Amino acid sequence: MNDLILNIINVVGSAGVLLGEDVKNRSDSWPPMGGCQAKAIIRPVSTREVSEVLKLCHAAGQAVVTHGGLTGLVGGARAGQDEIVLSLERMKGLEPVDTINRTITVDAGVPLQMVHEAAEDAGLLFPLDLGARGSCTIGGNIATNAGGNSVIRYGMIRDQLLGVEAVLADGTIISSLGAVIKNNTGYDLKQLFIGSEGTLGIVTRAVLRLRPLPRSCNTALVAIEDFDLLGRFLGKMDEALGGTLSAFEVMWNDFYQLIVGEGGRHGQPLKPSHRFYVLVESTGGHEEGDKARFESALEEAFGSELIVDAVITQSKQQRENLWAIRDDIEGLTKMLFPPLVFDISLGIQQMDDYVFEVREQLTERWPDSRMVVFGHLGDGNIHLVITVGSHDPDEVHAVETIIYEALGRRQGVISAEHGIGLDKRDFLKHSRSPNEMALMNTLKQALDPKGILNPGKIFVNQKDAPS
Amino acid sequence: MNDLILNIINVVGSAGVLLGEDVKNRSDSWPPMGGCQAKAIIRPVSTREVSEVLKLCHAAGQAVVTHGGLTGLVGGARAGQDEIVLSLERMKGLEPVDTINRTITVDAGVPLQMVHEAAEDAGLLFPLDLGARGSCTIGGNIATNAGGNSVIRYGMIRDQLLGVEAVLADGTIISSLGAVIKNNTGYDLKQLFIGSEGTLGIVTRAVLRLRPLPRSCNTALVAIEDFDLLGRFLGKMDEALGGTLSAFEVMWNDFYQLIVGEGGRHGQPLKPSHRFYVLVESTGGHEEGDKARFESALEEAFGSELIVDAVITQSKQQRENLWAIRDDIEGLTKMLFPPLVFDISLGIQQMDDYVFEVREQLTERWPDSRMVVFGHLGDGNIHLVITVGSHDPDEVHAVETIIYEALGRRQGVISAEHGIGLDKRDFLKHSRSPNEMALMNTLKQALDPKGILNPGKIFVNQKDAPS
Repeated sequence: MNDLILNIINVVGSAGVLLGEDVKNRSDSWPPMGGCQAKAIIRPVSTREVSEVLKLCHAAGQAVVTHGGLTGLVGGARAGQDEIVLSLERMKGLEPVDTINRTITVDAGVPLQMVHEAAEDAGLLFPLDLGARGSCTIGGNIATNAGGNSVIRYGMIRDQLLGVEAVLADGTIISSLGAVIKNNTGYDLKQLFIGSEGTLGIVTRAVLRLRPLPRSCNTALVAIEDFDLLGRFLGKMDEALGGTLSAFEVMWNDFYQLIVGEGGRHGQPLKPSHRFYVLVESTGGHEEGDKARFESALEEAFGSELIVDAVITQSKQQRENLWAIRDDIEGLTKMLFPPLVFDISLGIQQMDDYVFEVREQLTERWPDSRMVVFGHLGDGNIHLVITVGSHDPDEVHAVETIIYEALGRRQGVISAEHGIGLDKRDFLKHSRSPNEMALMNTLKQALDPKGILNPGKIFVNQKDAPS
Repeated sequence: MNDLILNIINVVGSAGVLLGEDVKNRSDSWPPMGGCQAKAIIRPVSTREVSEVLKLCHAAGQAVVTHGGLTGLVGGARAGQDEIVLSLERMKGLEPVDTINRTITVDAGVPLQMVHEAAEDAGLLFPLDLGARGSCTIGGNIATNAGGNSVIRYGMIRDQLLGVEAVLADGTIISSLGAVIKNNTGYDLKQLFIGSEGTLGIVTRAVLRLRPLPRSCNTALVAIEDFDLLGRFLGKMDEALGGTLSAFEVMWNDFYQLIVGEGGRHGQPLKPSHRFYVLVESTGGHEEGDKARFESALEEAFGSELIVDAVITQSKQQRENLWAIRDDIEGLTKMLFPPLVFDISLGIQQMDDYVFEVREQLTERWPDSRMVVFGHLGDGNIHLVITVGSHDPDEVHAVETIIYEALGRRQGVISAEHGIGLDKRDFLKHSRSPNEMALMNTLKQALDPKGILNPGKIFVNQKDAPS
């Protein structure tokens, strides 16, 4: 055992350090499957311990990969054999909810679902929500600027974060745990840590903004026959619902047909012959009034011939059945095996054409390939699930190239929610200019000149890159 | 005329450069009153010209102060005699509104009101709004992270900005004009330029997010007798209105009494004997339903004994009369002359105690001093207007010390909206720790190593500071 590890044990105690088989049995990617290569996993219990550990690592030039809930999808937590993992799994403290300012202060290792529960117990809502809620942590949510199901209403976690405590590469603690909405006292330092995937600092605590718990929820599935009408329907619903629109999830016909079709595990709330399906939802504070408003908004959409059919849920069970169709990614990826999943943003006007072009290119090269499309259209964000019948790295790379090149030509975004990590690094050039890349590098050099924080994730530091 | 100015004229033409009296007749503060000390005012017409001018200034080590609409309140645009002003007044282009993605792309010199009008012409809303709307520019709004009247519903401009184009100190153009809501492709570079008051780069263009135009607006003035009930009333209204709460403006009794009292220019919608008054407003998409919901929310508040009186406006004129009370800062500052205006944030629970302590300290030193309190309580942001009968710098400094020290003890924020500029620089230590200051300095050194961008604003660069 080398001196660095011994010194770290002095800080976090022996229970705070995992070595050997205990590391190899751990995972650093999703789905979890063991095989972490790191030389050690360090498990501090406080910001102070994180700081002390980083001071030691900084002095030794030791690379550090931070682990949250390990539900990321782009390899952002993968650790090499020369790296140390710093896991926040023992930092799970929550302060009591402040019901007047409507905030909660939590440690970075707290799972998202624990925040949901604490907020709800206090009669409030923490609106960030995603499928991995039981495992993903607030620290990981911040490091990846998590989005999820209610971005259209509440924004990403960036919009729900009032303050953070973070530790810089050299162990300096930046404690910006302000709990107020408005703070224009110089640079908003927390922005540096949001979405930078552990490369600029390690978030250890956060102050989260809470919202009123909705008293009503109205949900419908509607059918639309023309892509151009989708954007107009979105605008109409947002206007008619007065900003209470909380979900606008679009499924292309092939998605819907696959899920509700033969062999599917779901009913058919609408017949599967329409071109597009939208799961639209509104939450509010007045049960009766909100229902009337929701129905009147849909009537307006019928009247304007934006939609051709609709089913409004009448019970919690019906609502869950609708969402189960939208959320059946497991079923989807079983039917499209082996699946390749993409998470992209682009202008709504360009989506139809983009999907058409990609489908054509895929079919040309892989005549048996399949692709389904769905996503958070209200946020300009769609997901593609594709199978070309192979997981061969060259084939995968060829698919990625088709997806991202066609996107780059449309000023699209190669990662709407998931981040870049290792897996999308080679394609970042399609969404970012050389000047933007250089400025990212400037920031990295300024905050982490030795390059010890999650090295090689998002981009390769220029000073380390081959020329 | 020196070489630098000649070279700049080669870039922007002679119409693009003001010298001598043309500079002295200009202002660099608010209210405008002439006397700009800068050696020249440069007026580029494009991002490319801004870039070329900055390249020249960077090579010459020439300090540059950027000017927008000059409505800032903290001296952030003040220029010394060795400095050059770069004014974006000739950059006023707007692209057509994108009604499907609901965005607009504008030059930084466009006044806020022009954006309001362009959005409204397209049936949409740009929700950022503040008193200076006719003069202030989008570039200035971004540089100061402007807030204003509807932050409770829509957030600061940080939350309404999808992309920016900015020029770095050395002339490098960072064009991040993405128009999508979700973009997790590496560091979110635009965050660097928001609220950094022209010290890290010059914003030249922006992509703004637009919202549906509300179809309904419901407004009331209510009376509350106990501070603790204010926070509970806020929570109740936000919950009952289902997130359509768009204003929650509190006036302390002394504010209301002064404005509607003898010599005031307003009616008395409620009698002036209550402890607190709240102007509460909700906007939505369904005229009839929203009215019912608003009234039912107020009834609920009556039922829970949160409020003791209320008047709901029945016409546009009545609504304007209510807002005229809240907005009569001109009347207020005439009655409290010479006025000192403060813009602070702190936890709602601490406000009452804070106001009490400050009032006591002011009265002790200046028995005839007066102070009124009002503000955006829903954002944790209040304004204090104080007069001690003097504008003497030592007296002003003594008042500031009382205000900010009492705030610092409560982890308050010395600038909720206005920024730091020159005027609040000495007090920044009450809201920011030495580690935070050092990190700000690191960013400044990384992005502007020669310190040419708005030098001395927000903080004094450590390398220039006397030790």
